[in-house]
Amino acid sequence: MLGCPVSSSPVDRMAHSRGQGLPDILRLRTGIVPAFPDAVCRPRTADEVSSVLARCDGAGIEVVPWGGGTSVTGGVNVLESARPVIVMDLEELAGLEGLDETSRLATFGAGILGPRLEEALAMHGYTLGHFPQSWELSSLGGWVVTRSAGQESLGFGRIDDMVAGLKIIAPAGRLELSPMPGSAAGPDLKRLVLGSEGRFGVVTSVTVRIRPLPQERTVEATLLPTWDDGMNTVRALLQASVPLTMLRLSDPPETQVAMAVGLATSPAASLVRRYLRVRGIGDGACLLLAGVAGDPGTIRQTLTRARHIIRRGHGVSLGTRPGKTWLRDRFRHPYLRDGLLDVGLATDTLETAAPWSALHDVRRRVRGAIEGALETNGERVAVLCHVSHPYPDGASLYFTFFFRTAADPGETIARWAAIKRAATKEIAAAGATLSHHHGIGQWHAPWLEEEIGSDGVRILRSIARTLDPNAILNPHVLLDPMERLEA
Amino acid sequence: MLGCPVSSSPVDRMAHSRGQGLPDILRLRTGIVPAFPDAVCRPRTADEVSSVLARCDGAGIEVVPWGGGTSVTGGVNVLESARPVIVMDLEELAGLEGLDETSRLATFGAGILGPRLEEALAMHGYTLGHFPQSWELSSLGGWVVTRSAGQESLGFGRIDDMVAGLKIIAPAGRLELSPMPGSAAGPDLKRLVLGSEGRFGVVTSVTVRIRPLPQERTVEATLLPTWDDGMNTVRALLQASVPLTMLRLSDPPETQVAMAVGLATSPAASLVRRYLRVRGIGDGACLLLAGVAGDPGTIRQTLTRARHIIRRGHGVSLGTRPGKTWLRDRFRHPYLRDGLLDVGLATDTLETAAPWSALHDVRRRVRGAIEGALETNGERVAVLCHVSHPYPDGASLYFTFFFRTAADPGETIARWAAIKRAATKEIAAAGATLSHHHGIGQWHAPWLEEEIGSDGVRILRSIARTLDPNAILNPHVLLDPMERLEA
Repeated sequence: MLGCPVSSSPVDRMAHSRGQGLPDILRLRTGIVPAFPDAVCRPRTADEVSSVLARCDGAGIEVVPWGGGTSVTGGVNVLESARPVIVMDLEELAGLEGLDETSRLATFGAGILGPRLEEALAMHGYTLGHFPQSWELSSLGGWVVTRSAGQESLGFGRIDDMVAGLKIIAPAGRLELSPMPGSAAGPDLKRLVLGSEGRFGVVTSVTVRIRPLPQERTVEATLLPTWDDGMNTVRALLQASVPLTMLRLSDPPETQVAMAVGLATSPAASLVRRYLRVRGIGDGACLLLAGVAGDPGTIRQTLTRARHIIRRGHGVSLGTRPGKTWLRDRFRHPYLRDGLLDVGLATDTLETAAPWSALHDVRRRVRGAIEGALETNGERVAVLCHVSHPYPDGASLYFTFFFRTAADPGETIARWAAIKRAATKEIAAAGATLSHHHGIGQWHAPWLEEEIGSDGVRILRSIARTLDPNAILNPHVLLDPMERLEA
Repeated sequence: MLGCPVSSSPVDRMAHSRGQGLPDILRLRTGIVPAFPDAVCRPRTADEVSSVLARCDGAGIEVVPWGGGTSVTGGVNVLESARPVIVMDLEELAGLEGLDETSRLATFGAGILGPRLEEALAMHGYTLGHFPQSWELSSLGGWVVTRSAGQESLGFGRIDDMVAGLKIIAPAGRLELSPMPGSAAGPDLKRLVLGSEGRFGVVTSVTVRIRPLPQERTVEATLLPTWDDGMNTVRALLQASVPLTMLRLSDPPETQVAMAVGLATSPAASLVRRYLRVRGIGDGACLLLAGVAGDPGTIRQTLTRARHIIRRGHGVSLGTRPGKTWLRDRFRHPYLRDGLLDVGLATDTLETAAPWSALHDVRRRVRGAIEGALETNGERVAVLCHVSHPYPDGASLYFTFFFRTAADPGETIARWAAIKRAATKEIAAAGATLSHHHGIGQWHAPWLEEEIGSDGVRILRSIARTLDPNAILNPHVLLDPMERLEA
């Protein structure tokens, strides 16, 4: 009927009902899932995407495009609806469609997941260099529509910078934007698709800028005496254009946790602590990881420049062992969440970004909002924070928070919602961005107007109406928010 | 009446009737100017901009926003219209509104011109690094709405990359986008304003990313035996991430002209030629200028890396003298046009960009189209070409052409239009972009649909309608083209 393979098996529908946010996990674990798609379709070609959309548009069926389903903002969640809802899983659109080695451009079907994309490029000696924490399970098209940033965005750029061309298909139109190195031919329409979260069309194909596979990767760890020293050092590294590929600065609480975990395995723990105190590194210390990728000569030169600046910030080197651990575990942290839930601890993350001059204030305010969010319940919330994606003009702040689960899963979700509401409200009030790389989805949508203004929202709505006049495409994300977070 | 200073002096109206394209100059020189604005207004504040737009919207008056008036695409040209037309000159909105040294961000009124902007930053030790050839006369807001790229875009980026935040005012809305280092809060609306050419609103204020003023600038000149050697060398420099700030590769005809001009002043000309022939450099040689800016240590290191790659491309160094001449004359070339007109030669430029793998073909086809454009008139057209703005995935091609003027200025304009039509048609047919940094304006608009598709045009139109429902803002550029170039 839809012109492509369709599944209505309960397992398939369940597996495509929600993303990977904490409330999604809680609901899926407890079996209290409010809505499922009526079917899951898997188009094998762009023509099949087009045909599915035409039929759904005609029949008044909502379509949720699905890449890896790893959204942590409610970006793929199926809601109760008066209309039927199908999920369009793009996993069959996952081929390497073209490789232009001269121009270092590769074109992929948008449904390809991280590991397969990197394997396909590695066979030819290239990499994309886009490694979000969801990398193992998330898709190229998903990265594009959420404006994803990977752990090495410092060296390889955000997905925004990597996209040279793309194709989207919508119920009432399509865009085929050829790869261009630079252009002044009107506004850059690719940038409208980046961040559109499925509202403007289904991304079927993406041409990305690729680079030679680096020969080596090194991550050096340093402790800096205070958060101020750490922030000043990261900013100095950025503003001196040291070609690092990764920088991650943990605040004192996150550093304490990292040190506790790392040093617990070391027989020399107390000696190390004493040495650090002598060097001026106490409880206010901040862990800095600095990564570089390339050939050994470039790595050596870059680290020399970086160490010079880090020493000026009173940094004490911990060598490359903590970095090796980080590289090994870089995609594992999300899995810890399930283990913590088993012992009664819920954890989730949220993030923002702002100019350097505002970051101290933003961190203080958001941290305070999260810590105090469950005061009326008499529950405490623990907060860790790090800077991961720095730029010459500012950086992201990434918060991890922990709170106790309640006996009733609904109450646990209500606690989570209270924290998210408090944090998001504070982020908006502080003038920081609602998200640096998680996107808007359903959960941040109520605050979008505070960031881009009512006319910004009107512009996005006019584009959605042009491409999808009956609003069948993922109609509950980005615009037209349902409520200030499901309770 | 409009709520801000208004001039209706004939000189002011004449000076604000057209940009700086060849047909504009020809018309202004001969006094055959088809249309003038009815008045020129000069708002002194964003509130005055808002008030002017509200009154014009209510009264059905068209408004052409004016920065420096240096458009070479008909971007500010006043056309005959059934409605009154005023030009809004933004020269009064030209202050440094904020300087955040920590975040390296500076906010300016959008009407500020290049030299004043750089002076204001230099007082604090910073630079924007945006030097289009029009720099002396063009404005920050103009750079933004045309997606300008400066001569050092390789090192400092396009204006697209420099803009961190901005404000626009439209008849039916406004956007105030705070500076953010990176964001995933929906599509990046700044990118809609970039390239909007005044159709979506008047840019009143822009926050740009700034950098420390470089201590020194050096430009080294090299001759490469062939165009292939040159292109491969530029591509290798880009793909090896050598941190140069400028690269410019002239094709053999442009190199011949440059050498003739340069060597004419040298008593050793014939010796030099003989030496170059021995080194394999003949008539097919291409001149490469490679620039770098920064502290002496960085410059030295960068040039060492660059020379290594240039030698692999069989380059023969000409030292830094030709580069010094280029630096001295970098903003002078447009003035030559008037002198050439006086001796009966018309000259203009056009440009495009494409991925590396397509550039040979694009150059051959566009050059052929220009050379043959006046065949039916029995007139020849001379064409020079260079690569100026290279990227890892491609580069721009910049064409300069020369043809004889006719006794009748109208016929000279017709010749120009025949060349532009032939070149633009060929650029579109070759799949290259209509413009790398000049914009769309009135003259490229008829081909925009070929580049971005009819749905791309529909999207832009829906945004224009949302912000300017009565289409009073610069209504003859970008969309809704009048004709395939005025004849």
